Amino acid sequence: MQRLDLATATQIASAAIRAARELGLKPMAAAVLDAAGHPLAVLRDENASFLRPQIATGKARGCLGMGFGGRELARRAQAMPAFFDAINSLTGGEVIPVAGGVLIRNAAGELLGAIGLSGDTSDNDERCALLAIGAAGLVADSGDPQPA
Amino acid sequence: MQRLDLATATQIASAAIRAARELGLKPMAAAVLDAAGHPLAVLRDENASFLRPQIATGKARGCLGMGFGGRELARRAQAMPAFFDAINSLTGGEVIPVAGGVLIRNAAGELLGAIGLSGDTSDNDERCALLAIGAAGLVADSGDPQPA
Amino acid sequence: MQRLDLATATQIASAAIRAARELGLKPMAAAVLDAAGHPLAVLRDENASFLRPQIATGKARGCLGMGFGGRELARRAQAMPAFFDAINSLTGGEVIPVAGGVLIRNAAGELLGAIGLSGDTSDNDERCALLAIGAAGLVADSGDPQPA
Amino acid sequence: MQRLDLATATQIASAAIRAARELGLKPMAAAVLDAAGHPLAVLRDENASFLRPQIATGKARGCLGMGFGGRELARRAQAMPAFFDAINSLTGGEVIPVAGGVLIRNAAGELLGAIGLSGDTSDNDERCALLAIGAAGLVADSGDPQPA
Repeated sequence: MQRLDLATATQIASAAIRAARELGLKPMAAAVLDAAGHPLAVLRDENASFLRPQIATGKARGCLGMGFGGRELARRAQAMPAFFDAINSLTGGEVIPVAGGVLIRNAAGELLGAIGLSGDTSDNDERCALLAIGAAGLVADSGDPQPA
Repeated sequence: MQRLDLATATQIASAAIRAARELGLKPMAAAVLDAAGHPLAVLRDENASFLRPQIATGKARGCLGMGFGGRELARRAQAMPAFFDAINSLTGGEVIPVAGGVLIRNAAGELLGAIGLSGDTSDNDERCALLAIGAAGLVADSGDPQPA
Repeated sequence: MQRLDLATATQIASAAIRAARELGLKPMAAAVLDAAGHPLAVLRDENASFLRPQIATGKARGCLGMGFGGRELARRAQAMPAFFDAINSLTGGEVIPVAGGVLIRNAAGELLGAIGLSGDTSDNDERCALLAIGAAGLVADSGDPQPA
Repeated sequence: MQRLDLATATQIASAAIRAARELGLKPMAAAVLDAAGHPLAVLRDENASFLRPQIATGKARGCLGMGFGGRELARRAQAMPAFFDAINSLTGGEVIPVAGGVLIRNAAGELLGAIGLSGDTSDNDERCALLAIGAAGLVADSGDPQPA
């Protein structure tokens, strides 16, 4: 089975932060985790505020820990607030249920890992994640009913 | 780039607490942090209750960690409760999304740090922060659409 | 009973940091707590490293929480390591048993609060604490058998 | 004052992990933090065990929080075990007092940040840190009496 390696993770995280710069968005942090939820590359634009790496990691880790992209997590958090409150306490807040957390799959649909972005609006965060995953020739699963 | 030093931070924190006394508000604590979120001056009126320094620090630290004044954090917390619940757990409560946390900038708009006030209503807390920042010749960014 | 107020606490903490500068010591943080262990003034030289305020607070809080100056805490920590390990876990590390934490008393021997200093060696930290307490006309209790 | 940016931090962290591979050492994680202790680039070799990024971050953060390279922290931890036990509890273990944490300075001696390496022995971890800092044209401060 294919695994995400450091070189690819660094490439994806760098590309996501560069996309934010090129699109004129706020400075971002990006976290790329392997399928087990462990970090391969966590990068922060030197102008991004200092909680962004933790938030980016929490978006990615929540996707992997629950098995859905951030948009699906957001829908569930809205429908089941008490469940997500318990998850928050249980995990120390490492499940952040908003857009900007995206599962990374290969062309065969196998799960390779996830990326989380944080810095601008959730929609803009996700946009940079999708661009970076696409540029690496991999497939993004944002939790959208029509897969991105 | 300009940095906030201890003398200026002590002056701002002292002026904020003095403003509360002069305005007849409840006794307050004030926390002035540098741009990286580390404390320079945390002061508590001897008649303020004992959680006030932690709350003041959390208001200031949240502004710096997320990159917005407290009024913008409050708006976002209302719009995205699940996101802020997760941030609470993730950071051990160090992001306190209410008015009274204010970014401190110089005339050029550069971020120098933040102040948090706690003791009276959020609006009154913020009022003292704005007075103290202005008295130091610096610029307050409270997260208000019309910048203070 | 006499209480420590914000003005006196700020004066003592400022004097301690100024003493370190005048003596050519490393930049310091100072924490002055009231007799109940709650902060009145926590100040950090803008060139002191960022853990110093927490360490200074822990030195002062340990003195108040256990009822001895830092030198006596250090002696006990050496004699009873398992006890202090348990205290560490119990209190989340807020008892830091080294010199540089000093009880503050009035001339009648009443306990008013404590100061903790951190930045240079423990001996130099304590030296600045003693100077600052003396300059405020109060009495330092460092835990030395011959009271300072 | 010069700041470490994301591009330089990524270059240093990548070079450190590559050095470990080229020297036939165990796979490593590298954490490069800015002078305030906030992460710019945390990278993990895909074959390194999963606690390595946290340990690498703790080595770097401890150096910055206390103001010394890892070798000096290690000497102090040996001389003052009760102090470092308390620091451990106080900071949730984010001060890891061993070689492999190295301050990063410019030619003028200004503090720009720190790197932590984890994966092999502390000596080998530090060796990779020194190689990577040197390759970036910056100056390593490992806490050695004869500065590296």
